[in-house]
Amino acid sequence: MLLIKIGGGKSVNIDSLSKDAARIAKSNKLLFLHGASEYRDEFASKLGIPTSTIISPSGHSGVYTDKNAIDVMSMVYSGLINKRLVSAFQKAGINAIGLCGADGKVIQGIRKESILSVENGKTKLIKDTYSGKATVVNADLLNLLIKNGYTPLLTQPIISQDGDLINSDNDRNIALIAQAMNIREVVILFEAKGLYKDFNDQSTLIAKVNRSELDELIATLSGRIKKKLLGVKEAFELGVQKVYFGDSRCDNPISSALAGEGTVIQ
Amino acid sequence: MLLIKIGGGKSVNIDSLSKDAARIAKSNKLLFLHGASEYRDEFASKLGIPTSTIISPSGHSGVYTDKNAIDVMSMVYSGLINKRLVSAFQKAGINAIGLCGADGKVIQGIRKESILSVENGKTKLIKDTYSGKATVVNADLLNLLIKNGYTPLLTQPIISQDGDLINSDNDRNIALIAQAMNIREVVILFEAKGLYKDFNDQSTLIAKVNRSELDELIATLSGRIKKKLLGVKEAFELGVQKVYFGDSRCDNPISSALAGEGTVIQ
Repeated sequence: MLLIKIGGGKSVNIDSLSKDAARIAKSNKLLFLHGASEYRDEFASKLGIPTSTIISPSGHSGVYTDKNAIDVMSMVYSGLINKRLVSAFQKAGINAIGLCGADGKVIQGIRKESILSVENGKTKLIKDTYSGKATVVNADLLNLLIKNGYTPLLTQPIISQDGDLINSDNDRNIALIAQAMNIREVVILFEAKGLYKDFNDQSTLIAKVNRSELDELIATLSGRIKKKLLGVKEAFELGVQKVYFGDSRCDNPISSALAGEGTVIQ
Repeated sequence: MLLIKIGGGKSVNIDSLSKDAARIAKSNKLLFLHGASEYRDEFASKLGIPTSTIISPSGHSGVYTDKNAIDVMSMVYSGLINKRLVSAFQKAGINAIGLCGADGKVIQGIRKESILSVENGKTKLIKDTYSGKATVVNADLLNLLIKNGYTPLLTQPIISQDGDLINSDNDRNIALIAQAMNIREVVILFEAKGLYKDFNDQSTLIAKVNRSELDELIATLSGRIKKKLLGVKEAFELGVQKVYFGDSRCDNPISSALAGEGTVIQ
């Protein structure tokens, strides 16, 4: 079984991706997790409730998810983009079924009681956050669907221990899903050809990374790409053996990644 | 098994509805279909792409569903409201799983090639409509989920023969789902106590309607309530034996309807 993460950028080549997936599905069981962050930001602005970020005391920036942001997340991740992908996959011949983490409690987590935010040098305690950490994947439900010929397309939000919809870290969710489903190979599609020594210099694409070099690589990175690789590190700790980074914008993005055209970590 | 339709109004008492459902679920298998039309209209306006209606040559008015309207429908029906309901049901102890008709092709239909619209006395042919008629329900998927302890919450959009997301008539969908699942009893919750002889006069609530009087009653009605009853008529033709209309705004809306506090048709 192959776990494929589709990034949340707007340039994803959905048409070619779904046809590529249909070819690969002939010899592999597939499971998808997707984002929608660029669309979320667009619709949040259109609705007059723009995505806001907070800076933690340790300097990390993250999305602040209040009740409005959860509504936007439900609308854009599990509504707009999830159903667009389901439609594209169905057109390509894959019997896709879109689920957010709350559906059948497929991804459950623990909601944060509060978070710290640094604003103008002052640290504030924020209590109404709807975000948390995924802890349990309902592998029974995923296996039931896959065994019966359905291809799950998972997305945010997930569900808390109390039944609230919460935002969670999709990079970490990959690791948790892979562990629950005994998945050894993960494809991560995003809007870059792969990892770069210097993301401003296209000639520095990294073709291969040895798992043992991962910590060293992570130390050189920052921001979202660092978070992605911390997720990859956790995935390796939870049983994954090979991770392919590839370009979601190109033709046949999954097979290109599997052919090593991006970055392969093992 | 009981099929319960939750109307798309904003005054639905979701909290009491989900607790009521959890009590009834102890002795009945449940299957839900819900709308979200009031929220759709609200968010369509907020997004600057307001819901537009067309008048057919025979004088019927209906929602015109273009590509933008399908996006709003995905966002609001299968995103916002579906996941709010899933969360409320999970809080009440029901392991709900929200699906739009496209997921696992649970409701498939035939997209209309074109529709006729009368504008300023002239009849226009509109070709880019994403609407159609539901024709097939994937009972295997619903039974698989129900047998394994999940409660499906179905909603729009459905999927066309070509894999497009399309709008369909939820009143007709009830009949089709009931037939596919061999359901004999249907509860329809909406924002009224039940059917009235005169919807402007609260004292004219109709407690019971004999199935044989349905045509006569339909002849006296117009608009959305007429469409609802045409759906009920079709449901009876497809095997349903009892339909309960009840108030989605009250406490314990499902058990109140089942207790005959609204209108019972049989």
